[in-house]
Amino acid sequence: MSTQTPLTVPTPVAHLVDAVPAVDPAAADAARAVHASLATPPGALGDVEELGARLAAIAGRCPPPPCHRAELIVAAADHGVHAQGISPWPQAVTAAMVRTLCEGRATANAFAATVGAGVTVLDVGLAHPVEDHPRLRRAGIRRGTRDLADGPAMTDDECTRAVLAGAGAATDLIEDGADLLVTGDMGICNTTAAAALVAAETGLPPDEVTGPGAGTDPGKLARKQQIVATAVARHRHDQPWSRLAGLGGLEHAALAGVLLAGAARRVPVVLDGVNALAASLAARALAPDLAGHLLASHRSTEPAATAAISHLGLRPLLDLGLRLGEGTGALLAVPTLRAAAALLTEVATLDDVLRDDA
Amino acid sequence: MSTQTPLTVPTPVAHLVDAVPAVDPAAADAARAVHASLATPPGALGDVEELGARLAAIAGRCPPPPCHRAELIVAAADHGVHAQGISPWPQAVTAAMVRTLCEGRATANAFAATVGAGVTVLDVGLAHPVEDHPRLRRAGIRRGTRDLADGPAMTDDECTRAVLAGAGAATDLIEDGADLLVTGDMGICNTTAAAALVAAETGLPPDEVTGPGAGTDPGKLARKQQIVATAVARHRHDQPWSRLAGLGGLEHAALAGVLLAGAARRVPVVLDGVNALAASLAARALAPDLAGHLLASHRSTEPAATAAISHLGLRPLLDLGLRLGEGTGALLAVPTLRAAAALLTEVATLDDVLRDDA
Repeated sequence: MSTQTPLTVPTPVAHLVDAVPAVDPAAADAARAVHASLATPPGALGDVEELGARLAAIAGRCPPPPCHRAELIVAAADHGVHAQGISPWPQAVTAAMVRTLCEGRATANAFAATVGAGVTVLDVGLAHPVEDHPRLRRAGIRRGTRDLADGPAMTDDECTRAVLAGAGAATDLIEDGADLLVTGDMGICNTTAAAALVAAETGLPPDEVTGPGAGTDPGKLARKQQIVATAVARHRHDQPWSRLAGLGGLEHAALAGVLLAGAARRVPVVLDGVNALAASLAARALAPDLAGHLLASHRSTEPAATAAISHLGLRPLLDLGLRLGEGTGALLAVPTLRAAAALLTEVATLDDVLRDDA
Repeated sequence: MSTQTPLTVPTPVAHLVDAVPAVDPAAADAARAVHASLATPPGALGDVEELGARLAAIAGRCPPPPCHRAELIVAAADHGVHAQGISPWPQAVTAAMVRTLCEGRATANAFAATVGAGVTVLDVGLAHPVEDHPRLRRAGIRRGTRDLADGPAMTDDECTRAVLAGAGAATDLIEDGADLLVTGDMGICNTTAAAALVAAETGLPPDEVTGPGAGTDPGKLARKQQIVATAVARHRHDQPWSRLAGLGGLEHAALAGVLLAGAARRVPVVLDGVNALAASLAARALAPDLAGHLLASHRSTEPAATAAISHLGLRPLLDLGLRLGEGTGALLAVPTLRAAAALLTEVATLDDVLRDDA
């Protein structure tokens, strides 16, 4: 464990940050040695080989775990910036979709069933109440963030509690046997907060990274870009923690917690779209060693996604024009992660194949 | 069924060609109408929506089958052109890998297990004998093709029998319940035959579409390009059937049979890499209605793959730098096909979600 905590991070978050280990290059090398021994031409599995080496580096051992027990965490919250009229959707849609996710009827549930992943919905701040459900984990910190157009979206305490809520969900799933976590998100207006985080962390112009999200007309988009620019400017001299609290949503803070806790346990976390990528940038700014733990799944069409992927130095596995969120893109990448792990354990070596032939 | 048989196709192949239906645009429209009704922003599932529409068009109904019962067919054969010394691998490796595939220890087996697909190995012409195995289907037509450097690789009769062997394997799997077929291939030097088919069908310069395959040095590659150019020139005035028989491998002919038989039963066939794409070009030249049935899985690094994908108007789901063959890339796309099908049956409509909320 390295000592990498910036000075201004609340103590409970500092503990999470300090628990993030550097990835293990020796384990990655061991994976590459396995690849070189297999009954395949050198490099013929392309990015799947690189992915296997990364899984080994994250796990700190080769072979890495098989990624059989995949668990999706959908962090859900509302956003005070909704009051600015920048979304065509009423805020109640967040709660309605949380209910749908709990009932197993959302797209993420269909995709999770397809790849054999569990689904947990984490309420870190819905504006509208939802009923209890076995899939729902409650950590409602407040009924949505404050409006980032007017000032910081979260207090330090709120942001800390959201990070801890995500970390707690991740840790519990890992203790229950999960060997792969998948990020998901739900929250009307969360692409506004994500764009602000990405602009703040990358230094890119806010209007370059602010896109239409779940659908917005040109007038609303211009207003959204203006809000993002103003908010980012307000935090331009802040340290990473204050940027996250000031610009992020409760679900971005929660996803940062998921990432930190997964890394601490050396369990891979596969990132969905722009919200997970924004959370990754924020979390990496707190914990530089997190960089080697991040796994991109797909390239969302939201412009902040491509900016974040590039800034994080990641290579997405899929490029399918997705922009739904919920974890849908990350779920589709799960079988490729499993294949990368299986390649390191299930495949005959060239020596085996030729010896059998002799 | 349209009457689309070119005059010079042997009668048994003409029957297969005539059984290929055009895809059903009304079923694709029905899928798009379902997408528009879902609790997702319009178009937010990108290529997964388009894939669902294509699956419906292929099936001729919406929703299409779920693609739960996926079956890989690995068509395996040897190539007389191996005598030209263009591969670093001895020809016995084809049989050794067939044995490994039967025993479940090849990369394709690991990936098939990951996505829950069955594996059948179809011997359409191994040069070296292999033992019986429950996974092995024998249709050994001859011990590898003739050397395409010297003349036609197959006679009309050999090519016909290889097409029928592939069609028979596909039909039997479909009758046994398969609702998705996956192409695989194994055969030292098959990228030489594939490059020749792709050059012949696309009209592209042979050296643009002839790549290193499973590894070849610059000297061998130059020789391979020269052989492909000479063979393609020899068949430049031929009709499609004679191009396939003259340039293809037994496994390309078999894969053409798989494609024709799958289309006839309206069962989707997902294409792996350059060998499946070469077979697709050859089969589409025989049966133009096959075009709408073709589903690309990934973009192999072999140059003929990109040429063929472009010529076929396909959009691969994955771009992972793969060039192994065996069906590995196509297997990784299976979960996305299932997700596209599930999106049409498992997901709540926006009306459902908002009604529940009211």
